[in-house]
Amino acid sequence: MTERRLKLGAMLHGVGTGWDNWKHPDAVADAGTNLEFYLEQAKQAEEAKLDFAFVADSVYITPDSTPHYLSRFEPLTILSALAMATKHLGLVATITVSYTQPYTVARQLASLDHISKGRAGWNVVTSFLEGTAANYSQEEHYPHDLRYQIADEFLEVTKGLWDSWEDDAFLRDKKAGTFYERDKLHALNHKGDFFSVKGPLNISRSKQGQPVIFQAGMSEAGRDYAARHAEGIFCGVGSIENAKAYFKDIKQRTAAYGRDPNHISVMPGINPIIAPTEEEAEEKYQQRLSLITLESALTSLGRPFNYYDFSKHDLDAPFPDLGDIGKESIQSTTEKVVEMAKKRQMTLREVALESAIPRTPFIGTPKKVADLVQQWFEEEAADGFIIGPEASPSSLQDFTAHVVPILQERGVFRSEYDPAATLRENMGLPIPQNRYTEKRAAKVEVGR
Amino acid sequence: MTERRLKLGAMLHGVGTGWDNWKHPDAVADAGTNLEFYLEQAKQAEEAKLDFAFVADSVYITPDSTPHYLSRFEPLTILSALAMATKHLGLVATITVSYTQPYTVARQLASLDHISKGRAGWNVVTSFLEGTAANYSQEEHYPHDLRYQIADEFLEVTKGLWDSWEDDAFLRDKKAGTFYERDKLHALNHKGDFFSVKGPLNISRSKQGQPVIFQAGMSEAGRDYAARHAEGIFCGVGSIENAKAYFKDIKQRTAAYGRDPNHISVMPGINPIIAPTEEEAEEKYQQRLSLITLESALTSLGRPFNYYDFSKHDLDAPFPDLGDIGKESIQSTTEKVVEMAKKRQMTLREVALESAIPRTPFIGTPKKVADLVQQWFEEEAADGFIIGPEASPSSLQDFTAHVVPILQERGVFRSEYDPAATLRENMGLPIPQNRYTEKRAAKVEVGR
Repeated sequence: MTERRLKLGAMLHGVGTGWDNWKHPDAVADAGTNLEFYLEQAKQAEEAKLDFAFVADSVYITPDSTPHYLSRFEPLTILSALAMATKHLGLVATITVSYTQPYTVARQLASLDHISKGRAGWNVVTSFLEGTAANYSQEEHYPHDLRYQIADEFLEVTKGLWDSWEDDAFLRDKKAGTFYERDKLHALNHKGDFFSVKGPLNISRSKQGQPVIFQAGMSEAGRDYAARHAEGIFCGVGSIENAKAYFKDIKQRTAAYGRDPNHISVMPGINPIIAPTEEEAEEKYQQRLSLITLESALTSLGRPFNYYDFSKHDLDAPFPDLGDIGKESIQSTTEKVVEMAKKRQMTLREVALESAIPRTPFIGTPKKVADLVQQWFEEEAADGFIIGPEASPSSLQDFTAHVVPILQERGVFRSEYDPAATLRENMGLPIPQNRYTEKRAAKVEVGR
Repeated sequence: MTERRLKLGAMLHGVGTGWDNWKHPDAVADAGTNLEFYLEQAKQAEEAKLDFAFVADSVYITPDSTPHYLSRFEPLTILSALAMATKHLGLVATITVSYTQPYTVARQLASLDHISKGRAGWNVVTSFLEGTAANYSQEEHYPHDLRYQIADEFLEVTKGLWDSWEDDAFLRDKKAGTFYERDKLHALNHKGDFFSVKGPLNISRSKQGQPVIFQAGMSEAGRDYAARHAEGIFCGVGSIENAKAYFKDIKQRTAAYGRDPNHISVMPGINPIIAPTEEEAEEKYQQRLSLITLESALTSLGRPFNYYDFSKHDLDAPFPDLGDIGKESIQSTTEKVVEMAKKRQMTLREVALESAIPRTPFIGTPKKVADLVQQWFEEEAADGFIIGPEASPSSLQDFTAHVVPILQERGVFRSEYDPAATLRENMGLPIPQNRYTEKRAAKVEVGR
């Protein structure tokens, strides 16, 4: 087992996904397509020696989508731009497998990986909004569990394509006239249930071998997928007890698949509220709460339930029974909402407001937040955190400027990057050996 | 009619597409995935005030593909990176419509357009290699003319998606709490023969309204497509007489579709060989020729004929009759080769060598090449040129450092960029009005 290290990422998410975030006096209202905003955030993250910037994504909007979703950069393009403004920061792109082709995804990620000299990551998602199908010439969205079967094969194909060229395939020997060694180029010839992909990919392996794989699934199928494939997990946050149970479950599943549990980082997304005193932090939270309208809380509650219109229900009656609505969407979120409502016998109004901006445990002075980060890490509730902008537009800045130095002081987090390190190396992950090189090595071994 | 302006682009194509280019003593052998090489080329192009950098593409390789194709950056990612290293240079990405989805392409291009502040262009291609289908889970590649029907509808959808948001849709008025005006957001609701796309797109319009559309088709279907849609054409080059005929044909077709013929730029790709004296230029050409082996000439000849293996034929017999092979590929190229062979009664050996690196008319001193550029422009054989690396690794540098200053001196080409100009403005193209804004304006007019 390799040594555990704390990992930290920055969620670059414009103003954040809440309906009212943009109205905050400090919010950059057009952040979603504001290059300078993204550059500034990436710079903050890199100055604090964070592991990576993480760009979330989705490909379907309605007039009721929250402002950040309405107009924002596409992940691969903005991260390719950020690659030029950073030197060490990992660059994690969210890309769906439900409406893309493995050849294109493998290629664009490999290209980002080359451009950034080994800093690319891929957050594999399956797209949860049923409406997405209508943007991609499909009559129906794939059901939840089928999406994970597709995701399995998709990743298998992508990894296969990334091995098209062995690391030392390209000789480029002008004198001998040899550009590459033919026996180090491999066609994949994949034929599966969902994809037939011959290959080879038209780009060489990157410095880190393959982009780092992230996953965000919390459902049963999602956890299993993560345990098999993921090297980082972006997950929801609840109490430390819940987090510990989730952490343990993921590590056990990962070990059960024969993988080193230290090669998967459980990283809850947190939206810290940080201020010099507890009182000021509380004020910041109250200011954030004051922006929320009941209307927007209801709209935002509806999104994971396929944009369900909650406004037609009595606000002060118990949370309505929705039957199967939301089952094929973000299961983990919708189940959590329904459970919470049932358990605590909440009204619709209570559920909507509490869901809109849940009170984070990561609120208080820099020292308190640093203590919590350290505690969660050391008590194995998390391997690290992804810092999001939901609770305050200055969350990332406050965290990088005031919390990270404390963690560095304590030796809990790195103070410098290894100058030549890839994202894999920064995260303590091995560089996956090319499957064909491995086979070759095995043959030599047997032949001895 | 607007005034004609000379346009110049740089083809960023690694070492170039010839099999032996990389062996040139001055060639950067790993150029295809060498970020510093691309940065340097973009810098040269921008310092010379060129209109754009152009990144060609394809998505299928075999062990016999020429070295540049084997490993290279994907266009959208490398151009997003180059957007950060340049301020005025247009960024034209080649993207196939045969194996992509309009929603994704519209979005990635719009994102590049935002990142570059209005400098994106799209070279629409249909993919000519039959093998491509096997990388995209399809049993068969689409036949040539069907590809253009798909391309028609694809572009229609993409343009529709780019109009999802009217230019002034986003108010972001924190006081009033209005993020955007609902009647300025439009779902496309497209249902056609090949695509069903609801929309809206999840990114606002860019500074130039829509990316500039390029096209490279030379066939009948390709010309017609260009006349309807293209704002720039990347085309082959032959004699000035052929170029004039092609130019006239394109402008007539464009006018026949009710478009201003000055809103389509015919831009042959040229591979100039430039040196202080004629003798030195000739030496450069001979040096380039000396790199070609007969084997690689035959391989490279085979590519447009679906990697046809010419080596099985007698080299000194007349060029073989291939029947229908190549008809569904790059028709314009294969037809040209077959015609040339027939007309001049050439052997296979002659055809292979002459096709490998045709003698360009643009060879000689900077003054001679500048004279030719000016002549072709003034005599309406071209609206401009795209400078490629096939004939010499230093073509772009020689052209930007020695030929462009002469053209600037003569007032034929710009000496400075308009500081705030988009690619559209640099190319003298109008910003297309949003279709819904246009309708609204028309209604107001009628209502008066």
